[in-house]
Amino acid sequence: MGALVIGAQAISVAVLGAGAIGRYHAQTIAQRVPGARLAVVADPLAEVASSAGAELACAFTSDVDAVLADRGVDAVVIATPGHTHADLIARAASAGKPAFCEKPLSWDLATADAALAAVQRAGTLLQIGFQRRFDPAFVRAHELASSGALGQVQLLRSITRDPKLTNPERVPPWAIFRETLIHDFDVLCWMAGCEPVEVFAYADALIAPAHRATGLRDTATVQVRFESGALAVADASFQAVYGYDVRAEVFGSKGMVAAEPKAGSGAVVYTPDGERRDRVFWYLDLFGGAYTAELVAFVDAVRHRHPSPVPGHEARRALAIAMAAIESVDAHRPVTIARARSLEVSA
Amino acid sequence: MGALVIGAQAISVAVLGAGAIGRYHAQTIAQRVPGARLAVVADPLAEVASSAGAELACAFTSDVDAVLADRGVDAVVIATPGHTHADLIARAASAGKPAFCEKPLSWDLATADAALAAVQRAGTLLQIGFQRRFDPAFVRAHELASSGALGQVQLLRSITRDPKLTNPERVPPWAIFRETLIHDFDVLCWMAGCEPVEVFAYADALIAPAHRATGLRDTATVQVRFESGALAVADASFQAVYGYDVRAEVFGSKGMVAAEPKAGSGAVVYTPDGERRDRVFWYLDLFGGAYTAELVAFVDAVRHRHPSPVPGHEARRALAIAMAAIESVDAHRPVTIARARSLEVSA
Amino acid sequence: MGALVIGAQAISVAVLGAGAIGRYHAQTIAQRVPGARLAVVADPLAEVASSAGAELACAFTSDVDAVLADRGVDAVVIATPGHTHADLIARAASAGKPAFCEKPLSWDLATADAALAAVQRAGTLLQIGFQRRFDPAFVRAHELASSGALGQVQLLRSITRDPKLTNPERVPPWAIFRETLIHDFDVLCWMAGCEPVEVFAYADALIAPAHRATGLRDTATVQVRFESGALAVADASFQAVYGYDVRAEVFGSKGMVAAEPKAGSGAVVYTPDGERRDRVFWYLDLFGGAYTAELVAFVDAVRHRHPSPVPGHEARRALAIAMAAIESVDAHRPVTIARARSLEVSA
Amino acid sequence: MGALVIGAQAISVAVLGAGAIGRYHAQTIAQRVPGARLAVVADPLAEVASSAGAELACAFTSDVDAVLADRGVDAVVIATPGHTHADLIARAASAGKPAFCEKPLSWDLATADAALAAVQRAGTLLQIGFQRRFDPAFVRAHELASSGALGQVQLLRSITRDPKLTNPERVPPWAIFRETLIHDFDVLCWMAGCEPVEVFAYADALIAPAHRATGLRDTATVQVRFESGALAVADASFQAVYGYDVRAEVFGSKGMVAAEPKAGSGAVVYTPDGERRDRVFWYLDLFGGAYTAELVAFVDAVRHRHPSPVPGHEARRALAIAMAAIESVDAHRPVTIARARSLEVSA
Repeated sequence: MGALVIGAQAISVAVLGAGAIGRYHAQTIAQRVPGARLAVVADPLAEVASSAGAELACAFTSDVDAVLADRGVDAVVIATPGHTHADLIARAASAGKPAFCEKPLSWDLATADAALAAVQRAGTLLQIGFQRRFDPAFVRAHELASSGALGQVQLLRSITRDPKLTNPERVPPWAIFRETLIHDFDVLCWMAGCEPVEVFAYADALIAPAHRATGLRDTATVQVRFESGALAVADASFQAVYGYDVRAEVFGSKGMVAAEPKAGSGAVVYTPDGERRDRVFWYLDLFGGAYTAELVAFVDAVRHRHPSPVPGHEARRALAIAMAAIESVDAHRPVTIARARSLEVSA
Repeated sequence: MGALVIGAQAISVAVLGAGAIGRYHAQTIAQRVPGARLAVVADPLAEVASSAGAELACAFTSDVDAVLADRGVDAVVIATPGHTHADLIARAASAGKPAFCEKPLSWDLATADAALAAVQRAGTLLQIGFQRRFDPAFVRAHELASSGALGQVQLLRSITRDPKLTNPERVPPWAIFRETLIHDFDVLCWMAGCEPVEVFAYADALIAPAHRATGLRDTATVQVRFESGALAVADASFQAVYGYDVRAEVFGSKGMVAAEPKAGSGAVVYTPDGERRDRVFWYLDLFGGAYTAELVAFVDAVRHRHPSPVPGHEARRALAIAMAAIESVDAHRPVTIARARSLEVSA
Repeated sequence: MGALVIGAQAISVAVLGAGAIGRYHAQTIAQRVPGARLAVVADPLAEVASSAGAELACAFTSDVDAVLADRGVDAVVIATPGHTHADLIARAASAGKPAFCEKPLSWDLATADAALAAVQRAGTLLQIGFQRRFDPAFVRAHELASSGALGQVQLLRSITRDPKLTNPERVPPWAIFRETLIHDFDVLCWMAGCEPVEVFAYADALIAPAHRATGLRDTATVQVRFESGALAVADASFQAVYGYDVRAEVFGSKGMVAAEPKAGSGAVVYTPDGERRDRVFWYLDLFGGAYTAELVAFVDAVRHRHPSPVPGHEARRALAIAMAAIESVDAHRPVTIARARSLEVSA
Repeated sequence: MGALVIGAQAISVAVLGAGAIGRYHAQTIAQRVPGARLAVVADPLAEVASSAGAELACAFTSDVDAVLADRGVDAVVIATPGHTHADLIARAASAGKPAFCEKPLSWDLATADAALAAVQRAGTLLQIGFQRRFDPAFVRAHELASSGALGQVQLLRSITRDPKLTNPERVPPWAIFRETLIHDFDVLCWMAGCEPVEVFAYADALIAPAHRATGLRDTATVQVRFESGALAVADASFQAVYGYDVRAEVFGSKGMVAAEPKAGSGAVVYTPDGERRDRVFWYLDLFGGAYTAELVAFVDAVRHRHPSPVPGHEARRALAIAMAAIESVDAHRPVTIARARSLEVSA
């Protein structure tokens, strides 16, 4: 139990982007993060900003530039669509503000590298929202993998299956790799403890085949080979009718660990149909605690000038795997993963 | 996601008792309960009060009377030792303040009934801290039991095993029933949905037999018969070396539900020794979420004038089972459970 | 992998009683027990004997006396109704034949003691059919309890819930204790590793209340206190709509073990309704392997003149608990368990 | 419970190959398969044959030709090394004898096709020893997949991890695909219910890197694309220090099923180290029941002239995936799976 933090010490945090995850981050900052207070919620769409302000009973604006320029704002949380992240990261850095940014870093490596360069120049803190790194099961698995308790890591697995594909026509291009499996790519690298080397991927539209022609890929499998020789598999689906399915396995020469976020009530129901445990269909039921923990860590890092818990160059690595996976599907061959040049040590 | 609550609407809550659970409740009120703010922490021992104030960076006092008299205090959380609960409940009621009181209601039925009478006279809200009722697994089990989904409830089980008996000489008399199994008695009644009728109990000092002569009972088994005919078993131990073990089962004519709080990381570790899940040894790892949920419910009930989520007469019922269990052990026979006279409908 | 046993060494086994379990034991002897061959199936009801003979393609008879007198029969398996066991055990002993007898030993202690005296006089082997002792989960639990790995045993639990009460009017008197919980009483004593001292029991007709008047008891809970101080709870139901539920727990000063027979396919099915495992409704799906293992052990003991794996005086102990439980329900008080006088060391 | 089979109807089975699995199959035929009797165990190595004969107390020979020519032998079980299977299958077929042959069908497609052609010409029965198809968890998963209960199958996973790599120098070339993952390839095709189209594989020597130069591959990951569009991942390791790890998952548009053979005692042990389940390190502890079930099915098929439960052309398909996986590793690209020409409908 840490000490309560009195108001004077609290940092003032602005949330950019007032969609579902932006509002949840705003609420977390306001209610669940010691040492932080919610300054304002900003969204370029005025009506979105005002509805968020009403819902959260907080200040709101549609003027993002003003927020970035505001000296009273100590840090920002970026929760806008993925393709806008790189630009906002760069602008926050230029404004000297530490930033927590939702995944992915970007949808392409060029803008990602530009954003990371801006962060490096400004010397600001950047944390990417890979919340699995804050889930207790994943934390424990990583602890075992990185401490050597599992010996040499040889095989890995990570999966992400979302519960429902509602609007296939609105899914951004290659979202299966850049928005969904990006989590798995980050987890695999984090667990492997070394750089990814090569990818081979399949992707198809099996759930909504009518949208295949316009580019939808809703189902994918991937293999990743790492520098150490470790081999990984991953798969993703946009529609697991039984609810969220997020898991990882790390297999080493001394043992194996399997991680799965704890979800559901913990009650087991026995009826003539068998023995049943509930699953969850809402992402906050799966990762609510991890979303809080990552913002607590961000505010802590800002306040105590700690290094970023999830630095930009690690998110860049996950993006590089995603880009190689896209190329692998397109070219129908294994693809070497592009390494960043001088950015490995950036913030 | 509910709306944020702005400061003006928040109620001001004082915490009485600054031991471990008092401090945790104070921290919860301060940081995790929308609509509440922590007014002050009070403890009759001045040094305990001041250390809590320092730790929590909040106001503190050793003058409990002054707190109860303070018009700026909207509600109190009572977290003092069990034998002081009844008196403080009565005083809070006389002062017109809604009270959340840790279990047990009291250590005897006479003072319990006096406290409940005071609450009834004052018409104030009283909620007892049976936090299992706010754990998702127990909530789900109760939902199934009370909705009829399990059919007629026929068999029940509840157990409480604490991880470590550290100071056997300091254990209060009959704590195994009045402080520990009191949780199980409440859970059993809540799940059975009817009144308990009779108890038979065994209790012994198997963990620290040297302390048997001075009254320690560290291990117990109990049977409870309910009005509906349902039969229940319970057991408790003060020292489960594998960590907390808290579980319940409700068996009915249409099915069964087993409830166990979710704890541990969720990681499963595979080594040459087998397949292993962590257990927890710290009560906040087991019930941290439930401790928050019960105070959120309390503050909600106070603010919106809802009835008590865990009313005093239900806690009185659990205490009546505990007292009958003590008599059963002493008299070595089944004992009928004392019914309160006119209090069944009190707050 | 043991050596194959050639025909000449095989012992010839007769099965007495051709009901469901008798036929299954006969089939086990014929097909799954190395070193044994099925001599004949006997049932006093001629048509039952002949239908079993047809079904099993084996010799059959209704003349049990002739089977007991037959010099070609090396051993008998008694699978008749429970109240006939004691008499057949005594007759088999007088005929010098080793006997495997289904549980219970008897329905009363007097005939049980007479049967055990006959066995003692004859010096023949007697094994009682407590098959849980041969289930791998129970074997492992016992191994941990008896080796000291669990430390001092302090709490125990055993339950038996059968899937369906089909003909409440045909249930023998006090079957809940003498036919069902008798398994649990044996398991508890076996795990506790010492003698039971006292019992308190509740029993009621909750499933078929219309039959309460004629003596049916379909639901029961029991506490047993052991010489070591260990305390046990047990419960039973004649109708668990979710299928068989047989479990045990042994809690000691160094750890706990929970045992449950492995049943169901091992597949886990995930649908919008949750995560589901199958349960089993047929006793051979639960204990098929244990039924084979106990007969393999019996034939081994006969052939190699080993002591009985489940001796008569241990079954007598379980029966004594059952009789005390009946008295406890009738007299509504805890009842001391009757100890056998000189029989503790009998076969 | 089927009828006992009397001696006259039993078929006479010879076992070819007297290594560990051959002896176990011989023992199964002798003791656990109704309707079969063990005729003889044959091994070209005279001392191996005689030691097996001694151990099993049965007839033995080193003259395999004589066994195949023996009119008294009704069927053969082939349990010799993998590269000899195709030849023995062809010779058994030419001799008119039904054959059960251990996996794999062969180590190359040419000899496999020749063997299948011989079987087709002779019209004899051929069953391949993919015992997972007889494990209850896999049976249940297949039932759900093939019945349509899972909807359209979209993702699959199968893994095989053996407990210990003892003699890396003796591992046959490409055993990871042809001897180990061959099980997974069969399971994936069986579950997918359609033909495999393409493979991409990685394989490395991570456990015994010193043997990489001489061709050892001890760790592998594979992706398989199926005609239906379904995507599969598989992985294998020769050394899982925590014991056997064999699992499969089938994910479809209506649900998912996870299959894992039931193994271990079923006891759960709780100590200060956590909550522990045993794993198994001996293949008979994992698949003993399935090894019996597949031979029971074989003998049934022979006696009742049923079609083969695991026909040769399905084993050919698994081999084709293995061969494509080898080529994929060598050529470092995805490889199309070779289809057999006219053999799809062969026995």
